[in-house]
Amino acid sequence: MASQDEAEIRALFDEWTRAVRARDVDRLVTHYAPGVVSFDVIEPLRYLGIGRLRERAQAWLASFEGPLEYELRDLTVHAGDAVAFCHSLNRVGGTRKDGRAIEMWWRATVGLVKRDGQWVVAHAHSSVPFDPASGRASLDLEP
Amino acid sequence: MASQDEAEIRALFDEWTRAVRARDVDRLVTHYAPGVVSFDVIEPLRYLGIGRLRERAQAWLASFEGPLEYELRDLTVHAGDAVAFCHSLNRVGGTRKDGRAIEMWWRATVGLVKRDGQWVVAHAHSSVPFDPASGRASLDLEP
Repeated sequence: MASQDEAEIRALFDEWTRAVRARDVDRLVTHYAPGVVSFDVIEPLRYLGIGRLRERAQAWLASFEGPLEYELRDLTVHAGDAVAFCHSLNRVGGTRKDGRAIEMWWRATVGLVKRDGQWVVAHAHSSVPFDPASGRASLDLEP
Repeated sequence: MASQDEAEIRALFDEWTRAVRARDVDRLVTHYAPGVVSFDVIEPLRYLGIGRLRERAQAWLASFEGPLEYELRDLTVHAGDAVAFCHSLNRVGGTRKDGRAIEMWWRATVGLVKRDGQWVVAHAHSSVPFDPASGRASLDLEP
């Protein structure tokens, strides 16, 4: 049976998913700690702090037009008393403002800490692997 | 002050670093849980279980010749009672068997759980970002 902590974290991911689909940056960033360290799918190596993460989320969500599909598959939650981590395979589907259709899977790992009884995201790592033969990011893999 | 759990996890990373430098796969894999879920810098999207991880570690370590430099920078540890996660920027430096010099930084996130009083790695996520303009993996970034 899932613990209360795991249930709270899964509820956070549900809320997060709704915020992404609604392209609502404000709702999205409420779940992050101010000092969040983020490794994103695109450069640079890391984003430090919620300000940088917010900018990046804003730019990403603003690059789409119309409905946005967003899905987490195989979400696994390891929750302790005050520290938790989760991983999943995530998919986004939608249309870019330049008309290009995007359909992409990536790997997501999220680290959470409990602050004042509330789980917040202290670390997020999103990535795609690359193909060592070509040096290209693997943007069309499926689970 | 670092907790006892954090100290144990940092010791695990020290031991891990020594195992990589020595290209000792057996010592390396002792720290993983049998069901480890790994997202690696190269394809596929994920590696399930310690068998697959071991194969991949073996192939990676065997691709180098001579001394191997391996370094973790900015290792941050969040340790609870039974669950912990860590992140760092890692560097490898060495010479491939084909003579090519490799010097590369990547992002590493590790999720650990305590089993029978011992911290083991249940999840590992290593990646480089990509350049959205070229679609190429960013293999030459530095922190």
